Amino acid sequence: MARQATTDASPSAKATTKAALVDAGLHIMLEKGYHHMGIQDVLQAAGVPKGSFYYYFPSKEAFGLEVIAQFAVAYTERLEQHLGDTTRSPLTRLHRHLEQTLTRFERRGCRGGCLIGNLSQELADQSDLFGARLEAVLTSWREQYARLFREAQAVGELREDLDPQQLADFYLNSFEGALLRAKVSKSPEPLRLFMTLMFDGVLQGSPDGE
Amino acid sequence: MARQATTDASPSAKATTKAALVDAGLHIMLEKGYHHMGIQDVLQAAGVPKGSFYYYFPSKEAFGLEVIAQFAVAYTERLEQHLGDTTRSPLTRLHRHLEQTLTRFERRGCRGGCLIGNLSQELADQSDLFGARLEAVLTSWREQYARLFREAQAVGELREDLDPQQLADFYLNSFEGALLRAKVSKSPEPLRLFMTLMFDGVLQGSPDGE
Repeated sequence: MARQATTDASPSAKATTKAALVDAGLHIMLEKGYHHMGIQDVLQAAGVPKGSFYYYFPSKEAFGLEVIAQFAVAYTERLEQHLGDTTRSPLTRLHRHLEQTLTRFERRGCRGGCLIGNLSQELADQSDLFGARLEAVLTSWREQYARLFREAQAVGELREDLDPQQLADFYLNSFEGALLRAKVSKSPEPLRLFMTLMFDGVLQGSPDGE
Repeated sequence: MARQATTDASPSAKATTKAALVDAGLHIMLEKGYHHMGIQDVLQAAGVPKGSFYYYFPSKEAFGLEVIAQFAVAYTERLEQHLGDTTRSPLTRLHRHLEQTLTRFERRGCRGGCLIGNLSQELADQSDLFGARLEAVLTSWREQYARLFREAQAVGELREDLDPQQLADFYLNSFEGALLRAKVSKSPEPLRLFMTLMFDGVLQGSPDGE
C-alpha cells in the first residue's frame, strides 16, 4: 500500500495506486467523516506523493463517491456470502452474520461504525448526489435482507404476517441506529440488545440451536 | 434575535445575545454538523458583531456543549409533556408523540433529523467529552421511555415479557436509525414503518383507538 507512485505510472501501477488511495480514504472517512478527511492525509496514508491526487481523481467528491462504491461492493459480497449460505437455516445465517459483525466492531474498539450510515448522517442534507448514492446502497442491502426473510417465511421459520421488504427496511434501519448508539456509548451492548429484541421480539423465530 | 450586541452589554442583554447565539448554533449544527459550523455563520445568523464570540463562549467546543445542553433540556421537557399526559393511556401518548414528530419532520422537508443522533455520529470517535455528554442525553431519554413502558405494563397495555429499560433503549436506538434513513431517503416512510412495526410487531399493544 505504501508504494510510491508517479504520474507517468504504467496502467497497472496506476490501478494499484488508485486502490491504495481508496483504501486509505475508506479508513479515514470511517473515522473522521467526509468533510473532515484531508486529501493530504489520504496521500500520506497511501504513501502517494503530494500533489498527485488529481491525477487519479477529478475531485474530492469523485473520490468520496468511489470509496462509497468500492465499500458497497465489498460489503454486499460479504453479506451475500453470509445470507446465501444454504447449509444453514435463513435466520441462523442472519444471526451468525450479526455475531460476526459484533465481534469485528468490538475488535475495532467500538469505533468507526458503518461507512454508509455515517456518511448518510453527515451528507444527506448537504449533497443530493451523495444522498442518492447512499440511499441506493441501503436499498440494495434492504433487498438482500428481504430475500432472506422471504426464504425464512417459506421454510416456516418466520411469522407470516410481516411484509419481508418492510421488515428488511426496519431491520436495516434499526441496526444502523444500534450501531450509532454502540459507537457513542463505546460498548457493543446496543448491538447485543438489537440482536435479542429483533430475534425474540420481532422475528420470533429462534435460530436452530447455534 | 437580530439585536446588535457589544462587549459592554448589560447582564440581561448579554443573556439575550448568548441565547440568540445558542439558537443560531442549534439550527446550523442541525443542518451542517459541528465541524462544518463556522463561528462567523453563527454570529451572522444571530445578528451579533463579528469578533465578539469569545466574549460569550471560551471556545467553539464550549459553545457546542452549551447548544447540546440547551437542546436536551428543551427536548426532554417536550417529551415529558407528551409522555406524562395521564389523560391518555401510556402507549397512546407514545403514538401521539411519534405522530407529531413525524409531522414536524415532514414540515421541515425531511431535513435535519435529531441533533443528538447527528452529533453522536459525527463526534463519538472524535471527542470523549462530546461522546460522554451525548450518551448522557440518550440515557436520560431512555429513562423517560422506560418509565412509560413500566406504566404500560402496569395497566396491562404492554406485554410483560420485555424488560422496560432494554425495550426503551431498543426503541430509542431504532428511532434514531429510522430518522437517519428518513433523512437520507428524504421521505417520512422509514419513520412511518418504525411506528407500524414497533407498535404491531414489538409492543403488540394497539393505542386505544386514536
